[in-house]
Amino acid sequence: MAKEVPADGCDGDDAMVADVFARDCASRRIVENIAGKWGILALAALHEGAYRFNALRRRVDGVSEKMLAQTLQALERDGLVRREVYTTIPPHVEYSLTPFGARVAAAIVDLIEMVEAEVNANRR
Amino acid sequence: MAKEVPADGCDGDDAMVADVFARDCASRRIVENIAGKWGILALAALHEGAYRFNALRRRVDGVSEKMLAQTLQALERDGLVRREVYTTIPPHVEYSLTPFGARVAAAIVDLIEMVEAEVNANRR
Repeated sequence: MAKEVPADGCDGDDAMVADVFARDCASRRIVENIAGKWGILALAALHEGAYRFNALRRRVDGVSEKMLAQTLQALERDGLVRREVYTTIPPHVEYSLTPFGARVAAAIVDLIEMVEAEVNANRR
Repeated sequence: MAKEVPADGCDGDDAMVADVFARDCASRRIVENIAGKWGILALAALHEGAYRFNALRRRVDGVSEKMLAQTLQALERDGLVRREVYTTIPPHVEYSLTPFGARVAAAIVDLIEMVEAEVNANRR
């Protein structure tokens, strides 16, 4: 019998459980958005605190305006980033982490620190 | 005075400290290789145990032979993955994690479980 694949594509042993290895699972799309190199770096930067767009762009060395905008849109859609418009004069837009985004960003920062420690160890 | 950038491009406040936000730093290249979607999924799969190439390709649903080969080469070069050739008849090649790779993969698995839990919570 053909294996039943639920509508959202999470083809785990238990069809009700997210499976990141299944190409159509929502969890895989979210991990892919987080995992893009700009996603990782944007989340790590926002872990330091809220940023306006241009300040965030300066922090993430080398990102283009277009790539950063796309990255933030994807992270907002996946529930990791909050975009807030302040009606000051002139108005400004600020990006920050949601509670879910903050948990993910903390894990990413741990991972980055692990890699930086290894790079530093190999330089000595 | 121009800020001094060391030869390996890690332009942190302390020039001897890896800085993932600096575009030329070795730690950024490693994080980018880990962070590619196939890097994340390959490391998560190898966290389950050693794999032969074709078995790993089946586990990581949707990856092409070429992309998986490139991903494994990058992870091997960065010291995360070990490639071992067994001189059996016929010979076979097995991929596994180095100690550094195992630490990184454990952090990635935590991150994936965090995302899967969020996806599951939103489905209920």
